[in-house]
Order: sequence, then C-alpha cells, then structure tokens
Amino acid sequence: MKTKHLLSIKDLSVNEIKNILSDANDFLNKKSIQNKILKKIKGKNIINLFFEDSTRTLTSFELAGKKLGASIINMAVATSAIKKGESLIDTAMTLNAMNPDILIVRHNMSGVPYLLSEKVNCSVINAGDGSNEHPTQALLDALTILRHKKKISGLEVAIMGDVLHSRVARSNIYLLNKLNAKVRVICPPTLLPAGIEKMNVKVFKNIREGLRNVDIIMVLRIQKERMEGSFVPSEKEFFKFWGLDREKLNKAKKNALVMHPGPINRGIEIDSDVADDIGRSLILEQVKLGVAVRMSVINKLIN
Amino acid sequence: MKTKHLLSIKDLSVNEIKNILSDANDFLNKKSIQNKILKKIKGKNIINLFFEDSTRTLTSFELAGKKLGASIINMAVATSAIKKGESLIDTAMTLNAMNPDILIVRHNMSGVPYLLSEKVNCSVINAGDGSNEHPTQALLDALTILRHKKKISGLEVAIMGDVLHSRVARSNIYLLNKLNAKVRVICPPTLLPAGIEKMNVKVFKNIREGLRNVDIIMVLRIQKERMEGSFVPSEKEFFKFWGLDREKLNKAKKNALVMHPGPINRGIEIDSDVADDIGRSLILEQVKLGVAVRMSVINKLIN
Amino acid sequence: MKTKHLLSIKDLSVNEIKNILSDANDFLNKKSIQNKILKKIKGKNIINLFFEDSTRTLTSFELAGKKLGASIINMAVATSAIKKGESLIDTAMTLNAMNPDILIVRHNMSGVPYLLSEKVNCSVINAGDGSNEHPTQALLDALTILRHKKKISGLEVAIMGDVLHSRVARSNIYLLNKLNAKVRVICPPTLLPAGIEKMNVKVFKNIREGLRNVDIIMVLRIQKERMEGSFVPSEKEFFKFWGLDREKLNKAKKNALVMHPGPINRGIEIDSDVADDIGRSLILEQVKLGVAVRMSVINKLIN
Repeated sequence: MKTKHLLSIKDLSVNEIKNILSDANDFLNKKSIQNKILKKIKGKNIINLFFEDSTRTLTSFELAGKKLGASIINMAVATSAIKKGESLIDTAMTLNAMNPDILIVRHNMSGVPYLLSEKVNCSVINAGDGSNEHPTQALLDALTILRHKKKISGLEVAIMGDVLHSRVARSNIYLLNKLNAKVRVICPPTLLPAGIEKMNVKVFKNIREGLRNVDIIMVLRIQKERMEGSFVPSEKEFFKFWGLDREKLNKAKKNALVMHPGPINRGIEIDSDVADDIGRSLILEQVKLGVAVRMSVINKLIN
Repeated sequence: MKTKHLLSIKDLSVNEIKNILSDANDFLNKKSIQNKILKKIKGKNIINLFFEDSTRTLTSFELAGKKLGASIINMAVATSAIKKGESLIDTAMTLNAMNPDILIVRHNMSGVPYLLSEKVNCSVINAGDGSNEHPTQALLDALTILRHKKKISGLEVAIMGDVLHSRVARSNIYLLNKLNAKVRVICPPTLLPAGIEKMNVKVFKNIREGLRNVDIIMVLRIQKERMEGSFVPSEKEFFKFWGLDREKLNKAKKNALVMHPGPINRGIEIDSDVADDIGRSLILEQVKLGVAVRMSVINKLIN
Repeated sequence: MKTKHLLSIKDLSVNEIKNILSDANDFLNKKSIQNKILKKIKGKNIINLFFEDSTRTLTSFELAGKKLGASIINMAVATSAIKKGESLIDTAMTLNAMNPDILIVRHNMSGVPYLLSEKVNCSVINAGDGSNEHPTQALLDALTILRHKKKISGLEVAIMGDVLHSRVARSNIYLLNKLNAKVRVICPPTLLPAGIEKMNVKVFKNIREGLRNVDIIMVLRIQKERMEGSFVPSEKEFFKFWGLDREKLNKAKKNALVMHPGPINRGIEIDSDVADDIGRSLILEQVKLGVAVRMSVINKLIN
C-alpha cells in the first residue's frame, strides 16, 4: 500500500481496496495462509490500544493477528496509565518506543488515530474513532456484498438509521462511492449530519420511499444513550418509524440483503424477524468476513 | 468422543472418562505432548467466554490451551457487548461466526453452556454453570484420586459443606457414581438440595458420623455471601460445626485424603492445619492436574 | 545466575549485572534472538501477577516474553481470587501448582515478591514492590546510560524528587554504587528517607547545588496522591522548587542527560521543554531498552 497506515477509507485508491478484498477472500482458504504468510509475520508484534470497550472488533483483530502468527498485546488503557494522568500522546510514544509493528487504535474522539500516526514510527490502524471513520468495517462490508452480489458497482445501497453519530456510515459512504455503488441514506431529520449531500448520497426522510428498489440495506446501530432527549422520542417510537421490519423490507428489491455492524438492538433499529432471516440477513457473515479482511489489512501493513 | 461438547458429566461414558484421564496422565510427561499433539493443534483457536470472575479456572484453561499450541483469546464479557445490551445468544453467535474451534463458557446461570452449544458450530466446554455442573473439575478430582489411591471403584468418598449451591458437588456425584465409588454427602440441613437421595448418595447430617471410615473428603467452598441470612448463622458457627479440622479428620480412615476445589476459606470450611498438611491435603495437586485434564479435554474436542 | 530469582539489585554480583546488560544489548539485534534463544524458550510459561495497575511495565514484560517465544498469561488479580478472599500466598501457591517457569510480580507492599519466592518452585521476578525495589528498571537505566556514556564508573548521577516513596530510586542507588558511579540524591526534606546517608549517596536539599556538574539526572515520578497534605504543598509549588526545567538543567554538565521511569507528570516533576528535548532526554530510549533488558533477565532465569 502507498500509505503505511489505515486511517481513513479516503486514503485508499480503488486498486488498493480491490487488493485488500481479494487477499481477504484468499484468507478464507486456510491453506494459503499457512504457506505464504506465516513465515513473514511470525514474531511481529501488534498492540491493540482500545480506549473504548468492544467485544467484536477487539476479538476480530486479535483473531486476525493470531491466525497470521503475530503476537498480540491487548492494552486495557482506560484502567492504566491514562488513569495515572499520562497524556494520550505520551502513552502512544511509550508504546512506540517498545517497537511494535502495528498499533490498532479505537478511541471515542474523532481524529485520535491520525494524531497518533503522526507521532509514532509503526503502522496505525483505525479501529473506529468517534463518529469519524471505521475503515475495516467498511472493507468487510464491501467483501460481504461482493461475495453475495458478485459486484458492487451499480448496486443501490441504503444506509439507514443514526447516520449523524455513525463512523460506520461515513466509511461506507466513502468506500461505496469509490466502488461506484449508488448510495442513499435514510434517516430521521434529527440524526442527519449537516452537509451530507456533498458526500454524493441521496437523502431520504421517508423510509418506505428510501427503501424502494434497493439491493442492500445497511442498518446502523443506535446507541441507547441517544434514546433519551433531543434525538429520538423513545425506543418504541424509533422502532415504529425507523426500525427495519418485514413490512418495510418488502419495499426493497425481492432479493435485497440486510446488513448491520452489530451488536444489534433487537426491536429498536431492527426486528428479530429480519435480523434472523438467514435468506436475507448477512449479519453473521459480516462478522466472519471481518476476520479475513483484518488479516488482509494487517498483512499489507506489515509487509 | 461421541459428543462434540463437554457440558455435563452425565453425557460421558465410563470409557470416555477413562480415556480422558489416561490422556491427562500422559500429558504430565512433557515429551509426549510436543511430539504427538502440537502439530494438530497449532493454529486452532479457543475463546474463553467467562461471565464470572475466576483466577484458577481461567488460567488453567489458558495454560492448557497454550501448552497444546492453540491460540487463546480471553473475552472480558462483563465489561463489553453485554453491557451494550446485546443478548447472550447474539454474543455467542457473533463469536461463533469468527470460527473458533472451542468456546469455553462459565456463567452464573445453570444451563447457559448447553443453550450456547445448541446455537454454535464449534465445541463448547462447560467451565462451570450456576449451581449445575463443572465437569472438568470432577475429571481433575478423579485423576487426583486415581494417582493417589490407584483406583476409584469401591472408595468411600465424602463430599461435605454447601452442597446446595455447588456445581462441583453435582459433577463429582455423577462422576464418582459412574466410576463406582460410594458417595456420601455431609451437609447442614439448610444447605441440602431437595431430592439429593435420588442421586445415589448417602446423606449425613452429623459430620463425625459422616466422616467415619471414608477414604476421600471433598470439602466444598462456601461463598461468603451465604454466611449472612438464612443459610448459615456466622463464619465462626459454620467452622465450629462444619469446618474440617484435625479432630474431625481423625474420624476418617487413617490415610484419608482431603480435597478442595479452591479457593479455600481458611478457618471457615477448612482449618489451615488440615489444608496445609502435605501428607493429607491434595489441594495443590488438584490444581496441577487440572491443567493436564483440561489439555486432555481440549485435545479430544479438537480432534 | 547464582540466584533463581530477581528480587533485588542487592542480590546481583557486578559480573551478573554486566552479563545481563551485555545480553540485553545483543537482544537489540534481532537476528541473534531468533537463532540462539527461541528453541530453548518455546513452550515456557510466564505468568504476570500484577496487583497494581501498570501499562508500561506489564506491556514491556509481555513483549519481552513473547519476543523470546514464551507464553505469557496476564492475571488480573485485583478483580479475581483476591476479591473472593483468598490470601496472597494461596494465590501464589495455586499458580505455582500450575507449574509456570516464571512468576513476574508487582505489588504495592514491599517484600511481597520475596515472600512469594520462598513459597514457590518457579523463578520470581520483582516488577516493583511497594517503595522497596524495581530491579529491572535499574538495569534498564544502567543499559541506557552505558549506551550513551560508554561507561558508568565515575559518572556523577543525581536522583531527584520523591526519593522517599521511590522503589526506582532504591534499586538505582544499589546498582549505580555497584558499578562505581557517584550517586547523589536531591530531595525536599519531607521526601527524604531516614538513614539514606548510609546508602553511600550524597544528599542535597538545594536543587541547583545538587545538579552542579552531574552527568545524569534521574527525575523521579511523584504520585499525585502525595500532592495533598504533609509531603508537598501543591503541584505548582513542587514544580517551581523541585521540577526540572531548562534553567535548573543548565546547572548540570553541558552534555548531561535526563532520565525518568515514566509515566511523566508534565509541569510537575519535569517540564515538557526538557522531557521532549531529544538531545537531552533519554525517556523513550529507556522504554525501548526496557524490553531488551527484560528479555535478558527472562532468558537468564529460564536457563
């Protein structure tokens, strides 16, 4: 890759994206891993520096690294040096001095992985920063679509829910546009980011109109914290108007597929009936492909 | 093994039990591990999914897996997805989608490992569920007895203490009966499970009578939480009446051996004088053999 | 090494120290590691038993162990068995029964690693005990000095700050004296340990006098907890009188170098201007060399 970090989908060329996805696809075949890759990556050191709790992303990166033969160290940052009053930069500089090969960073403030990448020598992977980006999620979503629709170019993809706070939405908008999908967002007015029209998406404030004729529906997770106060009246209201259930799903194409970055809030942004429909829901497939995509990214950066 | 999971001692045949114990015995000889097993298990992935805190069991499984060459990932579940409101089943399905080889589950509700085993593709090991079972503890207890008494069949084994809340007691009652030991429980009436007589044990409410002529005494841990309220009047009272001290131990056979699943409460269910008597106490031996038994179980399930 | 543990600098001979440092130096060259060492250490088990939170020391030991090919298990002790009321010794005996090769112990009470070393069969490394010692820190400090000054014998080294509570200070005083440095401590009267004169150091209560003509300045971390109450009037006062800034640094030799065990409190015991001066500050170099020194110590003890 041209860049030594993975901070934003915006930094990737279409060729680089295709390359990552193609390698990830290969990693699903175990034989190829063991023969080509293990020798190179054995003994390399990866530090997971997660300032936010996360089951799936942390575990997915950990598994990806271990499958490649790397050593992974999980830093429970919240409980440690930061508590002692050490600054973010000092923590990063300290870890950098220990000479890891990759730092995988999640933080609740946008821009932290970029900031750290300016200060350290090793590669930095953005594992989610505030409401900015979550590039490996977008890459695994792309691989999931590719494996089920055989292409991305020309597909109608709807991203629905809390777009305002979603780093997944932002990374996916960038990536899907790069790969020539037609992207729309479906979103209550209170959860629509200012200036979203400039991101080359069509905005729908009516969910049934927005779902009409789409191939892929990406449902976003809504944080429970947003449920009180100014954004959303109540869980029940949100589900009624914006939750994806069978009736709304029927507005989409007959073979439209449903995605969600997880963890899902059943009965809030998505109905169990839809989430568990193995003919339509790709949610667990996304988790599975996440490991392969992260192997591919780690492998590229460790080169 | 016939089953792909280890959920309950009840599911194991006598032959399977003997097989597990014999392999565990072999694992105590390091050479045999490295030659036969490592190649097969290298690159396999095990996830420790512990919903309850645990030092010894978690570490024992982690060491067992690592000695076999597997990758182990510890999930700090309490602090993560579950906090975000994800359901137990969704967490398990998500981990399953990452394609691990074994899920090792501890939960404070009985039946959780069984429930998960119905939903996932990988093998599930029950590392303790509520007051139901703790099968690897019973297996390691059996190996400990075997190595010291050369047999289990025909031995008089007393299980004493808080039987009502003890998964260790239940798994041991099943296992010892399968191997033809004569099992008795010694227990205050408030801590005696209803219907225990049907489990093929003799019940003693008088400790000195119960200990008469036994070969093995398994002392159960009593949770400090039980000490207040309706179960037990006080720590001091409990120790006086139900704690194993030298005087009570003398009621048993001269060469009777003492076991405890740990961590021990000194001066509550067991006196330090007995717990630390290297001629009589097998407590640390149990810990040591625990690693070998868990290696054996992991190896069988990963086959 | 003569001893199977590393508990105190006092137990090391000058030759052993030189040997550790020379090996650590070799470990900075990756090739040599992979060839000579990996075979011996593969499959060895190390348990990190940290009763105090720590980012840098825990991670440094974890990386050191993994680079050598050992398996490392981190015990989150505070949250586990100890909570269940198990004694320190019982926890250690339990871990020992699992047959690890090394136990790396950090505890907020002085003497705990020594106490444990008396009870277990495996090697114990003291990773910091109360205000007693932190031997690997002193060793990495020595390597840092050696690589920059080519020698230690004869150098004027000032240790400044909260000497009273500092295990880093104590280990360094022992080590620097063994290697024939001339050691002085610079310290407010309230933070000066009784009887320090017997440790073969010169005591300065005036910082500018104390810094005059020194080659190395080791700034100690001051715990924020000390800032209130009887030890120190306020952060601001402490910085003004005892914090190392450019003006005070200028009292030392022209090429004097600055060290700090980290994490640093910017604007309290050290000014950012000094801490970040790459011509003078060795702080990140210390972190880097820490991994190599810990590899060297682990390798010696696992022999």
